Amino acid sequence: MSFPPRYRAKSRVDLSGEESRAKAVAVATELFATAGFKGTSVAAVAARTGLSQSGLLHHFPSKAALLAAVLEERDREDGDFLTGTTTPPLGWAAFDSLTALVARNSTRPHLVGLFVRLAAEGTEPSHPAHAWVQQHYASMRTWLAEAVRTGQKSGEIAADAPVETLVRTTIAVIDGLQQQWLLQPEDVAMAAEFEAFTDTLRARWSTVDAG
Amino acid sequence: MSFPPRYRAKSRVDLSGEESRAKAVAVATELFATAGFKGTSVAAVAARTGLSQSGLLHHFPSKAALLAAVLEERDREDGDFLTGTTTPPLGWAAFDSLTALVARNSTRPHLVGLFVRLAAEGTEPSHPAHAWVQQHYASMRTWLAEAVRTGQKSGEIAADAPVETLVRTTIAVIDGLQQQWLLQPEDVAMAAEFEAFTDTLRARWSTVDAG
Repeated sequence: MSFPPRYRAKSRVDLSGEESRAKAVAVATELFATAGFKGTSVAAVAARTGLSQSGLLHHFPSKAALLAAVLEERDREDGDFLTGTTTPPLGWAAFDSLTALVARNSTRPHLVGLFVRLAAEGTEPSHPAHAWVQQHYASMRTWLAEAVRTGQKSGEIAADAPVETLVRTTIAVIDGLQQQWLLQPEDVAMAAEFEAFTDTLRARWSTVDAG
Repeated sequence: MSFPPRYRAKSRVDLSGEESRAKAVAVATELFATAGFKGTSVAAVAARTGLSQSGLLHHFPSKAALLAAVLEERDREDGDFLTGTTTPPLGWAAFDSLTALVARNSTRPHLVGLFVRLAAEGTEPSHPAHAWVQQHYASMRTWLAEAVRTGQKSGEIAADAPVETLVRTTIAVIDGLQQQWLLQPEDVAMAAEFEAFTDTLRARWSTVDAG
């Protein structure tokens, strides 16, 4: 999609620096999600944002910097979402928050697609998103491990529940369901499947009989 | 890595058509795994195989055809591995076969990396591997669903166990653990984590008390 020059010129003067930056992040999120990181050019992001290429590079010195901003924005939003409902993380309630996050993700196929592809590409140490991917998983593990330990202390999760395994497996189920859901959005009820998984965990590791 | 012309010429005459084809698939597997599908050129595969580019294109008319051959080879190997131990699939034994497959995968980081990245890229309908990815997951689901139903008929898996959910979640755990293992090969015991997951399933859905 391209705009006549006068519309581009108009948006160049109308947007403040902060607005331009936010718009560029939104545009980049969409382009990375649909065309991939490698398939998206800085020029394309600049054009859709309504900025010159040098104007965009003023905010983000490289495509990798733009990617970092996109991913940080996603983590900030998800972090707000998760911690907004459980501060500090509290036992099984953290798993309910994750179910809610999965339900929310099932309304955002582009963002989930971006994440799944970048997480996979970012397993390569040379990829620009590698550090972010490592950090993303580390944060998720830390948050969820703390939630499980809190639940053990309060007595709702069995003291002998293997924390590391619960954490790793729960994150794996979220990731793996996203992969299947992207392939068959109509057939995979991501949130319901994840909730069924958390029910299995509760049946196994809850100290209260789940019946 | 490049070879002096006379070595390239030598290997060109030494390899039979079938050997060239098999070698090209092996070379392509390694290059796709390390540099990605997009980052690998037909010229690079030809050079490392010891074929001219037209010689390689004689066997594989396009890079997508080469990719299809790589993926079919992987599925053939894995299929032999899985069905070699359980023909027809038999209840919980199928999950033991999967644990063995996960253990085997933990010795093949390049192949797992290739699979994880292609599965993610292939969620895009326009990607050359899209049809293969769809087929791969469909086959896996069919095989595992049959195993669970067989176990229900024989009485070792509870009749009210939700087949679709067990299948989707099990595949999700395998995929998700691969993602985490690629990021931290030293820290993630993929096979042990998967086995712990199958223990949780058994504890929940086995008709025999798992203690």
